[in-house]
Amino acid sequence: VTQPGSSTQAVAQLAALLGADCVRTDAGELAPLLVDHRGLYHGNAAALILPRSVEQVATTLAFCNAHHIGVVPQGGNTGYCGGATPDQSGNQVIVSLARLNRLRNIDPLNYSLTCEAGCLLAEVQRAAADAERLFPLSLGSEGSCQIGGNLSTNAGGTSVLRYGMMRELTLGLEVVLADGRVLDSLTGLRKDNTGYDVKSLFLGAEGTLGIITAATLKLFPAARSIATAFVAVADVQAAVELLSRLRNHSGDRVSSFELIPRLAVELTVQHIRPTVDPLPGRHDWYVLCELTSPRADEPLDTVLEDVLADAYTAGLVQDAAIAQSGREAESFWFLRENIPRAQRLDGESLKHDISVPVAALPQFVTQAAAWLASHVPEGRLIAYGHVGDGNLHFNLNQDPLIAAEKFLGRADEVRRAIHALVHEFGGSFSAEHGIGQLKVGELERYASPVELDLMRAIKLAFDPNGIMNPGKVLKGS
Amino acid sequence: VTQPGSSTQAVAQLAALLGADCVRTDAGELAPLLVDHRGLYHGNAAALILPRSVEQVATTLAFCNAHHIGVVPQGGNTGYCGGATPDQSGNQVIVSLARLNRLRNIDPLNYSLTCEAGCLLAEVQRAAADAERLFPLSLGSEGSCQIGGNLSTNAGGTSVLRYGMMRELTLGLEVVLADGRVLDSLTGLRKDNTGYDVKSLFLGAEGTLGIITAATLKLFPAARSIATAFVAVADVQAAVELLSRLRNHSGDRVSSFELIPRLAVELTVQHIRPTVDPLPGRHDWYVLCELTSPRADEPLDTVLEDVLADAYTAGLVQDAAIAQSGREAESFWFLRENIPRAQRLDGESLKHDISVPVAALPQFVTQAAAWLASHVPEGRLIAYGHVGDGNLHFNLNQDPLIAAEKFLGRADEVRRAIHALVHEFGGSFSAEHGIGQLKVGELERYASPVELDLMRAIKLAFDPNGIMNPGKVLKGS
Repeated sequence: VTQPGSSTQAVAQLAALLGADCVRTDAGELAPLLVDHRGLYHGNAAALILPRSVEQVATTLAFCNAHHIGVVPQGGNTGYCGGATPDQSGNQVIVSLARLNRLRNIDPLNYSLTCEAGCLLAEVQRAAADAERLFPLSLGSEGSCQIGGNLSTNAGGTSVLRYGMMRELTLGLEVVLADGRVLDSLTGLRKDNTGYDVKSLFLGAEGTLGIITAATLKLFPAARSIATAFVAVADVQAAVELLSRLRNHSGDRVSSFELIPRLAVELTVQHIRPTVDPLPGRHDWYVLCELTSPRADEPLDTVLEDVLADAYTAGLVQDAAIAQSGREAESFWFLRENIPRAQRLDGESLKHDISVPVAALPQFVTQAAAWLASHVPEGRLIAYGHVGDGNLHFNLNQDPLIAAEKFLGRADEVRRAIHALVHEFGGSFSAEHGIGQLKVGELERYASPVELDLMRAIKLAFDPNGIMNPGKVLKGS
Repeated sequence: VTQPGSSTQAVAQLAALLGADCVRTDAGELAPLLVDHRGLYHGNAAALILPRSVEQVATTLAFCNAHHIGVVPQGGNTGYCGGATPDQSGNQVIVSLARLNRLRNIDPLNYSLTCEAGCLLAEVQRAAADAERLFPLSLGSEGSCQIGGNLSTNAGGTSVLRYGMMRELTLGLEVVLADGRVLDSLTGLRKDNTGYDVKSLFLGAEGTLGIITAATLKLFPAARSIATAFVAVADVQAAVELLSRLRNHSGDRVSSFELIPRLAVELTVQHIRPTVDPLPGRHDWYVLCELTSPRADEPLDTVLEDVLADAYTAGLVQDAAIAQSGREAESFWFLRENIPRAQRLDGESLKHDISVPVAALPQFVTQAAAWLASHVPEGRLIAYGHVGDGNLHFNLNQDPLIAAEKFLGRADEVRRAIHALVHEFGGSFSAEHGIGQLKVGELERYASPVELDLMRAIKLAFDPNGIMNPGKVLKGS
């Protein structure tokens, strides 16, 4: 949008407005921020802006809006869809929220806390735990991802089954709009029916409608009883039935229920130390499940043992290990959380972040796996994830004996087939990872024209100059 | 917007489009729909439209949009803020959703059901119960209010503490837009991060952005253990502390926790048969609390007894009755649900639907009650409701010895004082009842200009001709 050459001048003006310390152009400093977590996108940027305050974010956006400069907000840069990577023009600026990292307030009686966008997810979890509360969002990158990114992508993870996604965990927001005005809706109220739910639009908008600078989040009572098991199940259908039994018999205490295929165990044991295979035999499918209760004396281990024993008799379960200590439970989770890294270390992968109605999941996996087996010999299926939400990371990893190029050449065809099948099942091609730049075409293809029109109308109303994370989520935006 | 006289012609055209059976103009049939539940507003209408299908709703809106005719959607007409009452011009049409009342689908394994807007809330609760599931929304008018109204007002009620408001209970929507296009987002997916959360905008928009015709709603495991108590507490602070103890010791099994003042018990016993005062003595404040669990064998009665006994020793609780049967629990709930009707039968009332952070509730009640006692001798305070959500119906009832006119003459002054205090406490002047036409001025006063601007931008983008429920929620809309 800006004329070639004018970037340098704009960056100088921004430095004058914010202080030189907040505007970085050093190539070495910018380099890691110009490529996404998966290495799919490589962009350029006129500068990295590092505001220290909401006011400086506002100043930045007001300036960029006046000069039609594209702004790419960035948190921990752990996204899977290139949503935080600038384009290649070199005219856009990255706005990092890393310095807005204060915990502003924690209110245990109201079960809420208010923190800034740059706080690490793990820090927020810790702050809640220190107040004997639980902030339930939990995902593999929690040590490096930021709350702002979690909010902007409506993050999911391993506790959605019980606690919902980031949108459901958010009570209030502070947002800097495209023109630099600040929307202050940092309420901790549980009930507030005063007009349209404007806040929800920014949750999951991936920075295309404004920059979230702070949020008031819901807390829950801390878990005082926990039972964790690593279970070999007969197949995906058996996993779904086991979940139903566990929910019924535990009084809905299931907080996580993760499906893991054999290959994921093998790759993680092979590539990541010190991963341990929790069970002695080989099984096609596993489930990592966890029950939690805020009551200290709830016999969750007994519930888990009883349900697993019955399920064993019924032929659903083939073997199981119930964690005998917190350390053992951690080792189960270590395996689960390192699957994505093991996949990366093993070679190239084609990822599909899909969801279907829970009851349809077994049939979907059967059909999709059969198609892949007969059509894509270059890849090995690793379908894992959140069975209780109907959400699987339906990934294909490069067969080590096949050249990466040949494998990656199948990407479009495989995506088309998987997403078409997902669509047939009434599912979603983006369950929790969002659109970014990777799936803009898929949104065009699968969203209804009416829904797309409404999204475009909202984008135009909130960001008429189109400066907010251009080209992400909506085509041509 | 239409010229005088042109209404008749428009109504004839609508009857030609929809069939005469769908367009009613009989004064007797229209009369009850032209006045709101509280009798605050009396409007007129050119016609009542009774569509039998989504297509007929679409035809109606497309026609009204083309001819700039104001459309007032109406469900069970049980709202408290005049949101479903037309203006006095006689140019608007009421669109009743009463005939769109099919349960389209129930999916127990996915814990979801899909129903049309005209279904009664009680019917949806029953359909869920028949499938051994729970649809948790529960409120006094559940026998006559419709799901479409619950969705459009983001209804709350007595289970929000545990299950959230209507927005949190909604997975997908079908909406007819102002121009007659149909947005079909009737997904039952738990995770679906494909673009902006457009759906949330219609929830709580009170029919000003479109007409919701169907929804996919979340279900939960049915309650198999229940314990209910009617408890006399020392004061509001004691109620808040009792809630905290109950949440902790029950493992967060508290599903309702309702505050009731002495006067509410007295008026209900006096006006509504067969209300029974559950406790022998007189106490200033009561709590109706309920614990539920999906486990059949959970000893909730014991938990409740233990917590109440400890709280008695600590001086928080003065007396308590634990329901010994389902019938006794129902009689407690009968009292609670009939408070609004008892208030109406006793005389005029000034209602304030406020929320503050939970921990601040006792201090708010103390300050507000003191102000009322010294400034408004014409009224008697009845503050009751959802302590666990920080939401009270902070109502003032006409002293029977004072003339109604004199009492009602204080309305503006009282509202101003109560809402100003709520604002000081960081609270909301509309916790669960919405804006309607009653609180349009309050929204102007208390919402931030930035938030109002965004709401107006959304309204303009979704309904450029301003035909959807004109004058509700936003001023001049």
